[in-house]
Amino acid sequence: MTEEQHRGPLSEEAFVDWLTREGTTRYHDHHPFHKLMHSGNLTKLQLQQWVLNRYYYQTRIPIKDALIVSKSEDSNFRRIWLRRIQDQDGQHEGQGGLASWLELARGVGLDVDEVRNFQLVLPGVRFACDGYIQFVRESPLLEAVASSLTELFAPALMAQRLEAWKHHYPWVSSEALGYFQMRISRASLDSKHAIEWVVQHAITYELQERCVRALIRKAEILWHMLDCMSMAYVEPGRGLEGATYDQRHSQAAAQS
Amino acid sequence: MTEEQHRGPLSEEAFVDWLTREGTTRYHDHHPFHKLMHSGNLTKLQLQQWVLNRYYYQTRIPIKDALIVSKSEDSNFRRIWLRRIQDQDGQHEGQGGLASWLELARGVGLDVDEVRNFQLVLPGVRFACDGYIQFVRESPLLEAVASSLTELFAPALMAQRLEAWKHHYPWVSSEALGYFQMRISRASLDSKHAIEWVVQHAITYELQERCVRALIRKAEILWHMLDCMSMAYVEPGRGLEGATYDQRHSQAAAQS
Repeated sequence: MTEEQHRGPLSEEAFVDWLTREGTTRYHDHHPFHKLMHSGNLTKLQLQQWVLNRYYYQTRIPIKDALIVSKSEDSNFRRIWLRRIQDQDGQHEGQGGLASWLELARGVGLDVDEVRNFQLVLPGVRFACDGYIQFVRESPLLEAVASSLTELFAPALMAQRLEAWKHHYPWVSSEALGYFQMRISRASLDSKHAIEWVVQHAITYELQERCVRALIRKAEILWHMLDCMSMAYVEPGRGLEGATYDQRHSQAAAQS
Repeated sequence: MTEEQHRGPLSEEAFVDWLTREGTTRYHDHHPFHKLMHSGNLTKLQLQQWVLNRYYYQTRIPIKDALIVSKSEDSNFRRIWLRRIQDQDGQHEGQGGLASWLELARGVGLDVDEVRNFQLVLPGVRFACDGYIQFVRESPLLEAVASSLTELFAPALMAQRLEAWKHHYPWVSSEALGYFQMRISRASLDSKHAIEWVVQHAITYELQERCVRALIRKAEILWHMLDCMSMAYVEPGRGLEGATYDQRHSQAAAQS
């Protein structure tokens, strides 16, 4: 294949295949931490810390989506994308995805104020989430939207998670699992719009490649969050399993 | 008054007085271009060019508001501020403030496609509007919100404009004036929320001063847009009155 041919845009089908292939293999459902979670092998404390750390990511979503809205010159696009912010913030106080996540936090026995103040969020989780916001802030609209395409793989993971939690962690009430339930249908709708828009606007091979790279970057962010949680709460070594990052550090300091 | 006393925060009343004083004196309703408009002394072409140039500003509003939303960590704030974007973009295609402004453009006899493509927007109007977006992008949330406070003075101007247009420019249909009508009530609601939020969050004298400066900056932006239009269409000199910027330049080039 000549350079010239190589640079022509891929067909819609080939481009979507490429995105799907990269996304499927890199999505965080393959992460050991998720495998432990879905096979019922996380302790209560590990599950709690996942909920607590992941809340920081959740709170970045409406910020990321507002940045995406701010990059669009198209009322139709903005109108549709705005729903994502509304889904997280709700129509009234106490509604919406962020409130549901706090319900989940309550459901796993966390102190909600401790979750909201982000004090116990792992540094690496913060770096990854803040890196996501920075990426969206600095990227053109197309790549910012493409980075959201991990949601293509979310409905399957949410459905799996819902079943796994009900089965393995029955001490968490069904009501606390509302967020996962809601995301099954919402992520399908959102990702359908996003992929159609990306396919329509990635009109050169270079743009298609940038979209794939953006999706990979986003998958790395999600993956790295679980790496951090594994390091802190699953394999912290030397009998520190399950301790918070701060506890481990003060303990390590006391030992040195 | 000692330095110490000087730096204590002003009372809510004194702070609002300060904002109101600076805003009232600097608001663009005092601009000669507006005075010509409201006394019925703009030509059809001048009125058209105002509508055309101002449309660029209008299209910056949802972008500015999305940036403001992206700066907030508070679901309640975001939920309320989001309405501004919805007001401009509408619930459905063809609705909302931007669509109303295009109705106005049609009503004054402009080619709507020419308005939408921004080709005839004056360079200085672009600089001012882009400067506003840049200011909001780079400012903390408080100052970004404070810069929106020119809307405190919008309802009075809108009411005045509505009457003036009906009286002096009867060739513009009432239906085309929907934007001004809508803004009378919306700007009151929006500015009430914004000023309450600003008063609540500007808790030091320094922050209050920054808010006043942000409001002044915004007033300068609105004022400068009218300066540009005056220079291009009211006092272009040498018999070029009413010509577009490009026409004047090609004419000037032909004469040199």
